[in-house]
Amino acid sequence: MLFLVHMIVNIPASLPADEAARVKAEEKEYSQKLQREGKWPHIWRVVGEYANYSVFEARDNDELHTMLSNLPLFPYMQIKVTPLARHPSSIH
Amino acid sequence: MLFLVHMIVNIPASLPADEAARVKAEEKEYSQKLQREGKWPHIWRVVGEYANYSVFEARDNDELHTMLSNLPLFPYMQIKVTPLARHPSSIH
Amino acid sequence: MLFLVHMIVNIPASLPADEAARVKAEEKEYSQKLQREGKWPHIWRVVGEYANYSVFEARDNDELHTMLSNLPLFPYMQIKVTPLARHPSSIH
Amino acid sequence: MLFLVHMIVNIPASLPADEAARVKAEEKEYSQKLQREGKWPHIWRVVGEYANYSVFEARDNDELHTMLSNLPLFPYMQIKVTPLARHPSSIH
Amino acid sequence: MLFLVHMIVNIPASLPADEAARVKAEEKEYSQKLQREGKWPHIWRVVGEYANYSVFEARDNDELHTMLSNLPLFPYMQIKVTPLARHPSSIH
Amino acid sequence: MLFLVHMIVNIPASLPADEAARVKAEEKEYSQKLQREGKWPHIWRVVGEYANYSVFEARDNDELHTMLSNLPLFPYMQIKVTPLARHPSSIH
Amino acid sequence: MLFLVHMIVNIPASLPADEAARVKAEEKEYSQKLQREGKWPHIWRVVGEYANYSVFEARDNDELHTMLSNLPLFPYMQIKVTPLARHPSSIH
Amino acid sequence: MLFLVHMIVNIPASLPADEAARVKAEEKEYSQKLQREGKWPHIWRVVGEYANYSVFEARDNDELHTMLSNLPLFPYMQIKVTPLARHPSSIH
Amino acid sequence: MLFLVHMIVNIPASLPADEAARVKAEEKEYSQKLQREGKWPHIWRVVGEYANYSVFEARDNDELHTMLSNLPLFPYMQIKVTPLARHPSSIH
Amino acid sequence: MLFLVHMIVNIPASLPADEAARVKAEEKEYSQKLQREGKWPHIWRVVGEYANYSVFEARDNDELHTMLSNLPLFPYMQIKVTPLARHPSSIH
Repeated sequence: MLFLVHMIVNIPASLPADEAARVKAEEKEYSQKLQREGKWPHIWRVVGEYANYSVFEARDNDELHTMLSNLPLFPYMQIKVTPLARHPSSIH
Repeated sequence: MLFLVHMIVNIPASLPADEAARVKAEEKEYSQKLQREGKWPHIWRVVGEYANYSVFEARDNDELHTMLSNLPLFPYMQIKVTPLARHPSSIH
Repeated sequence: MLFLVHMIVNIPASLPADEAARVKAEEKEYSQKLQREGKWPHIWRVVGEYANYSVFEARDNDELHTMLSNLPLFPYMQIKVTPLARHPSSIH
Repeated sequence: MLFLVHMIVNIPASLPADEAARVKAEEKEYSQKLQREGKWPHIWRVVGEYANYSVFEARDNDELHTMLSNLPLFPYMQIKVTPLARHPSSIH
Repeated sequence: MLFLVHMIVNIPASLPADEAARVKAEEKEYSQKLQREGKWPHIWRVVGEYANYSVFEARDNDELHTMLSNLPLFPYMQIKVTPLARHPSSIH
Repeated sequence: MLFLVHMIVNIPASLPADEAARVKAEEKEYSQKLQREGKWPHIWRVVGEYANYSVFEARDNDELHTMLSNLPLFPYMQIKVTPLARHPSSIH
Repeated sequence: MLFLVHMIVNIPASLPADEAARVKAEEKEYSQKLQREGKWPHIWRVVGEYANYSVFEARDNDELHTMLSNLPLFPYMQIKVTPLARHPSSIH
Repeated sequence: MLFLVHMIVNIPASLPADEAARVKAEEKEYSQKLQREGKWPHIWRVVGEYANYSVFEARDNDELHTMLSNLPLFPYMQIKVTPLARHPSSIH
Repeated sequence: MLFLVHMIVNIPASLPADEAARVKAEEKEYSQKLQREGKWPHIWRVVGEYANYSVFEARDNDELHTMLSNLPLFPYMQIKVTPLARHPSSIH
Repeated sequence: MLFLVHMIVNIPASLPADEAARVKAEEKEYSQKLQREGKWPHIWRVVGEYANYSVFEARDNDELHTMLSNLPLFPYMQIKVTPLARHPSSIH
């Protein structure tokens, strides 16, 4: 079951630089783990913005919320989830 | 080069039913042709809406506009294009 | 798996009165069938508006989209779906 | 009498971590007390957001405002209330 | 129990003039009946707009919805309801 | 001459608690003085929000602005003014 | 007492051309009469739009609403009124 | 003096096809005449939309409004004008 | 050439009171100088808001931007400029 | 391939003045380098705002994102990208 997820990142200026670097490194590691497990099949940068559009594969809403709320950058992100269904014109 | 494309369909009530059916059939055929050619790699239905989120692969902006403006449903759609770049955390 | 669904109804003035009455009767019957099956556990009228907030129970996004797009009033509604997860403070 | 309540939580970074933890614990206790009393029949997490949709049962607007403004997280929340009425298609 | 109600009127050009006049006369009569009964204590015209802000007194949400959905102009209005509570600074 | 005034209060976390308490006490006193003078005939709490809808009676726009900009909480409020006229259906 | 008034004109395509021409001629005459009387001291075209920003001088809100609702184009306009007060930096 | 102009075209379905074709041909001719005169130095299609972003060169606001309101498609467009100034980092 | 300018002032709480007072005094002096020179013919307070609507007279966009960006309160203001043209119904 | 880019600058008050000056100087140098290389053909100041509209020439979305995310002011800007295509009425 797929969901389009839009994430906008706003790291507050008050966060110390090394702390910010640490959180971003954790985020990358966490993201790549989910990608390798097939739970996060697509992640694209929105051109010109500190934001991404992603596609998640989840068993249900609870699993998706758990994955998203565990993002190391979760406290600094604005997230919007759009549930997706199969399109009747899709060849897949 | 990838683009996220959001399409909302509004077929006016004044369009005769058979004409609407004909345009939708052409739209499906056109969409599947582009999908098979690899130009339209993803199309998902937005749950509960007569709308889709799609990902297009285009050589440049002109090619993308040509593909979108040739959609049989183009006159009845509201379209929003978001250019995508590679995300630094992507494993692909 | 639960979803909050917001539906706003706009029946065009051009729809003949008896046709509108027929569609509304079908909508009621369809809604009550889904309610009795436990797929549509809550439906509330938004005070002062021709709109409702509903809660749907669906196995997945595809089932939800099928239920919503089969609503007899679907062509005349603006629908917005919000996926819901278990709240950590919930006693249920 | 039912109300749909949408709550978005924004705890400022300036709030010390232990103070934040204390307020969240009080919030959970307060919420569960109202749930057990039947005043807060539903609380759902919005997937991907630090937000919830809830349904409250209140005798009148004043009682609802008292319940909401006494939420320990009230100073850190953006709340929107939608009054609900019985829907004519409801089987309840 | 009080509610602020914002009503914007949009009578479609397709409604015949005498039918529009009839509905407006019924609306006035209905409104004045509710005003005399104390259910609609305030109605003010928004300057420069075919709109009003009103205050309704209702026993509960269901009664308010019944009053509003029975407005003869209801099919031609966009209505927004805001529940009101006693203000702690009020001298009343 | 009447005006609907919508006030949303946002007291910054940086304001010391006793200073905030002092300003709120002044606000209440100031509000009740204007209410007793008949210049502020209605003040209602918006349910679930730190906000109010009020009705002011003013000789002219300048008097209204003076009353509002002298509110002790004025620096911490977002205010929106809607001029009101007599409604042709009003029985008053 | 001054008010800034923003007017956007939308004449429906269904209005016959000669009827539209007649209403526009009446609008111009009515506008110039109010300008000569000093009630409508400024009217400016918004560049690129069928819209204007105007300043009205009115004794009170009721007089302003009467002037605006008597505009021949009133049924085809979207109007927004902003009450103005003397600015403390004004040299007038 | 430069202005950025955003134009969205909405040709109503009620306009006969040959009339629409005629207006579009006139629009193209008018646009190219202004381009050749150096008054309309840039016109770009917004990808995926029946819209454009243009840059106009005008002596003053009145000349710009005259150019825009004489567009054959003016009655069917939504136009937004942004005045531009020299940027201090510009090398031109 | 005239422009309508909307200015909303937001002085941050972190600005020391005497510094804020100094900037406001400079703003008043600067504004009155431009008013006396005929470059800023109108300035009105928006009732209930720390905001104004002004009309500026400028030779061109560059002169207007210079005047606005030199406002002592410029760093603390949100400004929106609307270019104005002569209205065909104006008697001036 | 052209893109319209809208940039709004918000330098936080907490950034020391000399640091802000240094970043702005770097921004200017970086911008002029890209302009000279033909990658940033147009940059215009939005009148009255600390914002610009720019046109970028990029080989693809990735190159554009790299150019934008390397802007020294990038952490302090809100950026919106609109992909542009050739307009059929363009004489170029």
